[in-house]
Amino acid sequence: MPIVVQKYGGTSVGDVGRIKRVADRIARTRQAGNDVVVVVSAMGDTTDDLVHMAEQIDPQPSGREFDMLLTAGERISMALVAMALQQLGVDAKSFTGSQAGILTDSVHGKARILDITPGRIIDSLAAGAVVIVAGFQGVSPDTKDVTTLGRGGSDTTAVALAAALHAEVCEIYTDVDGVFTADPRIVPHARKLDVVSTEEMLELAAQGAGVLQVRAVEFGRNFGVEIHVRSSFSHAPGTRVIPQEPDMEAAIISGVAHDTSEAKLTILGVPDKPGMAARVFTDLADANVNIDMIVQNTPAEGDVTDISFTVPRGEAALAQSTLESLASEIGARSVTLDVDVAKVSLVGAGMRTHPGVAARMFAALSDAGINIEMISTSTIRISVVVARSDAEAAVLAIHDAFELGES
Amino acid sequence: MPIVVQKYGGTSVGDVGRIKRVADRIARTRQAGNDVVVVVSAMGDTTDDLVHMAEQIDPQPSGREFDMLLTAGERISMALVAMALQQLGVDAKSFTGSQAGILTDSVHGKARILDITPGRIIDSLAAGAVVIVAGFQGVSPDTKDVTTLGRGGSDTTAVALAAALHAEVCEIYTDVDGVFTADPRIVPHARKLDVVSTEEMLELAAQGAGVLQVRAVEFGRNFGVEIHVRSSFSHAPGTRVIPQEPDMEAAIISGVAHDTSEAKLTILGVPDKPGMAARVFTDLADANVNIDMIVQNTPAEGDVTDISFTVPRGEAALAQSTLESLASEIGARSVTLDVDVAKVSLVGAGMRTHPGVAARMFAALSDAGINIEMISTSTIRISVVVARSDAEAAVLAIHDAFELGES
Repeated sequence: MPIVVQKYGGTSVGDVGRIKRVADRIARTRQAGNDVVVVVSAMGDTTDDLVHMAEQIDPQPSGREFDMLLTAGERISMALVAMALQQLGVDAKSFTGSQAGILTDSVHGKARILDITPGRIIDSLAAGAVVIVAGFQGVSPDTKDVTTLGRGGSDTTAVALAAALHAEVCEIYTDVDGVFTADPRIVPHARKLDVVSTEEMLELAAQGAGVLQVRAVEFGRNFGVEIHVRSSFSHAPGTRVIPQEPDMEAAIISGVAHDTSEAKLTILGVPDKPGMAARVFTDLADANVNIDMIVQNTPAEGDVTDISFTVPRGEAALAQSTLESLASEIGARSVTLDVDVAKVSLVGAGMRTHPGVAARMFAALSDAGINIEMISTSTIRISVVVARSDAEAAVLAIHDAFELGES
Repeated sequence: MPIVVQKYGGTSVGDVGRIKRVADRIARTRQAGNDVVVVVSAMGDTTDDLVHMAEQIDPQPSGREFDMLLTAGERISMALVAMALQQLGVDAKSFTGSQAGILTDSVHGKARILDITPGRIIDSLAAGAVVIVAGFQGVSPDTKDVTTLGRGGSDTTAVALAAALHAEVCEIYTDVDGVFTADPRIVPHARKLDVVSTEEMLELAAQGAGVLQVRAVEFGRNFGVEIHVRSSFSHAPGTRVIPQEPDMEAAIISGVAHDTSEAKLTILGVPDKPGMAARVFTDLADANVNIDMIVQNTPAEGDVTDISFTVPRGEAALAQSTLESLASEIGARSVTLDVDVAKVSLVGAGMRTHPGVAARMFAALSDAGINIEMISTSTIRISVVVARSDAEAAVLAIHDAFELGES
């Protein structure tokens, strides 16, 4: 029987009524002749509530205990979804990340999946049950401790399970209809994409399109999993993320993503000699800071240079203190931090073969009176950092300049 | 280093402020030179909230999924208690029942502990940490599924761990000062007992003194664990439950217990021939109904008899339907169910050697105009079933007849 993996986010299982609707959808998928594995997040605000209690006790709780706390959330939702299926007469069994064989490293709060040993899942499917798996969590075989995969980890759980089980498709259910050319809250005439290549989705996700986590897309690409992003509130088809690139007739640009969750750091007056950048980013890696965009200019004059980069805002303070101790050691001048920034990205596989895309994007920003603070590009993406207050105007200006909306 | 096991109930860890106070008490015990193992229940109303959600989905959810759901409760409280200790500079590590090696049978909702393999606890104590263990839960080695021990199971977890770890004492923290001669809410002049024998505590617990679970007392008796029942809101000594009987000078009576959580069932007109009672209680046992008090009279005349017994009210419907299918099969006349009953018990090791205790108890009830529906006795206990509306008056009358209160 073909295996379908479905992932339901916190909004989709936000209350008892929604859990019953999710169970109904799962039951239909099962009755259509599929083996079904369901990955669930914690209900609605559960995770936020748990985080809030922890913060009242210790603003920086131990990673081990924090993961132990947060994993209670999916335990609740998965048991309730299993009960709702049983109530519909569908055999169902829930498993924690540990029981489902999601083996990770031991970096609490952002563990990486090392392997999946889905023996209990396979046995339960063979016995005719729908399997419900807690998203976002796993277990470290080294420490035997429970771990979490970090924000959006349930997407990763779902795609990784789909890969391990050779599933036909991994359906990611969310509260929007699919992947759009821009955030519809900012660009009301944004258009839903019926299909997007894995490469483009990777860039869109990495640049802040919140509909799918970048690690999940990476897993999908590496293991050839077909991902289908769709709404849990309708039966309309969503966006298929497919390994192949769209054919030559496809649009040049797939969409505009934006991300206001990062902060920008600059280390000024770094001596321009070999090994300096390596030194900076080795120290940051040792402190477990996730670096996103990095820009270093060739020094215009003299023998010093500036290095700028962006990090998740929650890690900005740690990055700053790490850099400050380093700065005096390597003779850099100072470290600056700007938390009021936004990153706006234009993504499209077609831009490889179409020159002039960057020029058109920068002109659109200039016409809108928006100053560009940093620029970084890949073969299929151009990202700029702008002031946070300019973010929405920038998205709109770029979206319209490339005529991405509904005609 | 001596090992102290402490158990904190749901009220003691009811909110963040209380968790911090509990952590403070644990830290003091640690600083006094003890290895400390802490067993926690779920916070305040958490379990009730989870039960309520499950009931909205399925009034009779699968035991496996219901246990999966409920065990989320202790996971939250144990992680928060560990964090609060770390915040005080005390090394602490929390473990689920499964991680702590609490091995049970696979009867969901009322699993029995089969063995404890506390390897991770011992290692963590040796490494200098305070260990926090989730009460009420374990894992079945047969099915690898998570189980719960049933109501009050955290007491059992604590005493069983104290036995497995050869702890010096098992402190059960609660919201009252110890074990009283009667429920102080009903008898305001009830007296706190400084010491009570295990035998007496067993009877008091079995007869409804809610301060300690009977299975925990049994464990304590079987493995020679000293239990100390005390308040988490004061530092006053509570009640020590000791294996030895009090000396000959001790009081005849230790207290009056009452229990309004049961229902009474009677199967009428059972043919009076060998094997009938066995048949009745075998069927009930197969249906997993917990029987408490059983009364069968010698038939006054004819060849039929009536059998009455009490069960937890939540199991009354199941017991009734089980009996009804049996009744026609064995030729019994009918089955009656009365949910408006209370059981009132007088307990005291001294009554073994003091005749006339029962007579004095029945006279007190008679003087108060209270009708006795069932009587059952052991060597150190006399229990009566009365109408629920008579329960408080019965407790007061008996307590006063034996002059158990403060003088």
